Amino acid sequence: MALTISKIAEILGGTVDGDGSAEITGLAKIEEAQSGQLSFIANSKYHKFIETTQASAILVDIDFPKSDRTLIRIRNPYFAFLKMAEQFYVQEPQVATGIHHTAVIGQDCVIGEKCAVGAHVVIGKKCKIGKNTIIHPGVVIGSHVQVGENTIIYANVSIRERCRIGNKVFIHPGAVIGADGFGFAFEDGKYHKLPQMGNVVIEDEVEIGANTTIDRATMGETIIKKGAKIDNLVQIAHNVQVGENTVIAAQTGLSGSIKVGKYVKIGGQAGFVGHIEIGDNALIGAQSGVTKSVPENAFISGYPARPHMTAKREEASLTKLPELLKKIRLLESQLKKICDKLNIEHD
Amino acid sequence: MALTISKIAEILGGTVDGDGSAEITGLAKIEEAQSGQLSFIANSKYHKFIETTQASAILVDIDFPKSDRTLIRIRNPYFAFLKMAEQFYVQEPQVATGIHHTAVIGQDCVIGEKCAVGAHVVIGKKCKIGKNTIIHPGVVIGSHVQVGENTIIYANVSIRERCRIGNKVFIHPGAVIGADGFGFAFEDGKYHKLPQMGNVVIEDEVEIGANTTIDRATMGETIIKKGAKIDNLVQIAHNVQVGENTVIAAQTGLSGSIKVGKYVKIGGQAGFVGHIEIGDNALIGAQSGVTKSVPENAFISGYPARPHMTAKREEASLTKLPELLKKIRLLESQLKKICDKLNIEHD
Amino acid sequence: MALTISKIAEILGGTVDGDGSAEITGLAKIEEAQSGQLSFIANSKYHKFIETTQASAILVDIDFPKSDRTLIRIRNPYFAFLKMAEQFYVQEPQVATGIHHTAVIGQDCVIGEKCAVGAHVVIGKKCKIGKNTIIHPGVVIGSHVQVGENTIIYANVSIRERCRIGNKVFIHPGAVIGADGFGFAFEDGKYHKLPQMGNVVIEDEVEIGANTTIDRATMGETIIKKGAKIDNLVQIAHNVQVGENTVIAAQTGLSGSIKVGKYVKIGGQAGFVGHIEIGDNALIGAQSGVTKSVPENAFISGYPARPHMTAKREEASLTKLPELLKKIRLLESQLKKICDKLNIEHD
Repeated sequence: MALTISKIAEILGGTVDGDGSAEITGLAKIEEAQSGQLSFIANSKYHKFIETTQASAILVDIDFPKSDRTLIRIRNPYFAFLKMAEQFYVQEPQVATGIHHTAVIGQDCVIGEKCAVGAHVVIGKKCKIGKNTIIHPGVVIGSHVQVGENTIIYANVSIRERCRIGNKVFIHPGAVIGADGFGFAFEDGKYHKLPQMGNVVIEDEVEIGANTTIDRATMGETIIKKGAKIDNLVQIAHNVQVGENTVIAAQTGLSGSIKVGKYVKIGGQAGFVGHIEIGDNALIGAQSGVTKSVPENAFISGYPARPHMTAKREEASLTKLPELLKKIRLLESQLKKICDKLNIEHD
Repeated sequence: MALTISKIAEILGGTVDGDGSAEITGLAKIEEAQSGQLSFIANSKYHKFIETTQASAILVDIDFPKSDRTLIRIRNPYFAFLKMAEQFYVQEPQVATGIHHTAVIGQDCVIGEKCAVGAHVVIGKKCKIGKNTIIHPGVVIGSHVQVGENTIIYANVSIRERCRIGNKVFIHPGAVIGADGFGFAFEDGKYHKLPQMGNVVIEDEVEIGANTTIDRATMGETIIKKGAKIDNLVQIAHNVQVGENTVIAAQTGLSGSIKVGKYVKIGGQAGFVGHIEIGDNALIGAQSGVTKSVPENAFISGYPARPHMTAKREEASLTKLPELLKKIRLLESQLKKICDKLNIEHD
Repeated sequence: MALTISKIAEILGGTVDGDGSAEITGLAKIEEAQSGQLSFIANSKYHKFIETTQASAILVDIDFPKSDRTLIRIRNPYFAFLKMAEQFYVQEPQVATGIHHTAVIGQDCVIGEKCAVGAHVVIGKKCKIGKNTIIHPGVVIGSHVQVGENTIIYANVSIRERCRIGNKVFIHPGAVIGADGFGFAFEDGKYHKLPQMGNVVIEDEVEIGANTTIDRATMGETIIKKGAKIDNLVQIAHNVQVGENTVIAAQTGLSGSIKVGKYVKIGGQAGFVGHIEIGDNALIGAQSGVTKSVPENAFISGYPARPHMTAKREEASLTKLPELLKKIRLLESQLKKICDKLNIEHD
């Protein structure tokens, strides 16, 4: 595939700053791009590479500084680059259309048109798989599971019975959907397992990371709403609700019955106690320990999590604490001298 | 299935507070229950739903406030609800009894009566599987592994050679039992792998969460004792011993050769250095960083982990630190004024 | 197998301190060793067992205290023990040489001599597997993947298309190599998936822990360099580079585009923001939250991560903070008394 720089700018709705006649045949990171490749700058840490990059054209923000490089100026250059990536990058199909002869499909399943079901896949009875969906080798799906259209389920994923997966969902390798929630009642000196009777519902356009685990509800549903993006090795406990377009970075853990709003952003390795609510648009810093509900639009961080500016101020003052201890000792000795001079009793 | 409220109270040994004649046909969470359903309240956060629930009867503690709802008063209502869940909830079998024709079973294996071995299961030679045990599709078991009776091993679990699994154990999807411990000797500028010669022993009634990893011992055994409950994505390193009826929440990590007592409760995302002991009945807060041994009955939290009340007090005083810095500056200027007035030298 | 103590000392290049004539037939931990077994002491926590061990000989450091036990004195006794473990411990082969008849191998693959490809393995087209490599049951490998010689890939591992794995690599069960990086552009009120066009390269002698996830690069390569050792449940994001002989303990998370140097040691559950560099030989404490680049040879810890001695000093002073608050109140009242006496205005 080849497109001139001018043509790319036209497709994207950007403006060329420089010579638009050269042909672009591929895409690359700014620090590795070669002649003939298109790149982008969306993070100021990468501005410096404008000097040294070999890229033939660079997608940049509208107010990017003037340069002797050929720029395509556009709002949201990262998104523009993504649109070009969709054009230039053709992913090789990994699973042939149809049902592989080693796959084991239960009774009364409905497998949609143009589905690709890979080798050694196991699907329980009475499942419904929507059209164009791709199920990679080694996936195990329990009975009565519904999967939508244009969804990709990667290798060795496990989905237990009665879960429902939407359209255009990505589930990355090794993820586990619908395992038993962690619920026990203590009696007679030991823990008794509470049957986990509910399921997991994953709505359209959700992404679930590799080896992430989403437990089924004790009763009712654990829900991941439309457009939510969940990274690798995340733990989502029973009865959690994750709102629309919320993003959760790797290794975060959500305890049971938490309700997370929409457009929330959660950093990596954050942890949350159960039965709390996280308001819409909240930002939760990486490694936060969230011990109570969070209002809409709040930005919290630290352990225990508190407003981010407070946490930063406290961290900054903590660095002064060792010096402060010395200062206090000095104040004390000074005071003692004064008290001695004035014949005031010193405690 | 249908039982009158009075009959349920009789089965459980509770007392009906209200009209016991209505029939219960199902179970639900208090906030979602409909007419004809039984629910429970065991956490004060859910008391408020007593006003609005549509449940026909609610299991509550003996001293729960009077209400115009039909209550079944009983000690440990959560456990009582669990007993009813066992009656009302019938889990649909996912794996047919017998050995699926695609399963690959090694030489000299003994598979007990009424076992269910799913599609594409692989079992190494000389394994012994107890009766009524269910092995879901995609499970891989190495040679010389013993699995007890009435155990359930879910999809895509990997169990390496010579491990031993007890009776009534649950191993959730994707868990890895008996991978090599992380042991290397440094010599000649690189790390050399120490053969991990031991195994993992999981005793009766243990639960192992989805995608949890339990490494085999370097020598001897990594042991999870009877009745311990381990959540998802937990890391248990080589030669760890987890005591009876200990509960470990998700994403916690135990380093090598730790000995955890019985009835210990460990919150999510806690981490432990190696070669320490955690006493019986200890409580370890979520996200704790445990750097030394913990006595019996202790409650510790924070990083580094310290007695919980100390940790809370320090956290509380930390919030006052920015203000304290201002106060100290004020004290200093005040002192200076006094020193000037008294002609005392000020440092 | 049996070797005299003297023979073992000779093989290893150590010196016998005591009677070297007894035969050794096995290896054991110091606290569990029986007569006829060889053990070692490499950590001072285990010195006490010298009194009670039943081991017939113990590998110890050259300057280990005199004892009435039979010692083999040697530099690096742990490495010496490892060399003996390689002699005494014969791991039973788990996968027969050849390609199991249930394995599904894509077109135009080259499988090297003496490879062992287990049951229900799936390999995509145009893959190349080097000689003597062992692929356990349930492994799924995408198209155009290259795997070196003498590598072991354990059960249920998923490796996506175009990744490259070196020689003498261990990939433990459930690991996921080459899943999509977590990259989205926000536009029109939702997140759009950026195609993850790169791959993962794992060089020789690397070890990848169970259920660890290593994401493919957005463009270019995510690289794990020669001799690096990565524990279980570690998250390595897109475009990360891990240097030679670097060791990463369990549950650590590396965000996108981090460059980690060689001989770095990273404790468990540490987290790193993206786009930073970690210098050679750096030490990163367990549970650290690393928010900026780290120079060579630095030792950092805590949240946010700072020089380890600073972090320890701040933690120590924090324990004095509650008491300090009382002391300040006392100073204030004292000052007030003085001001009253001197008729100085008090703020």
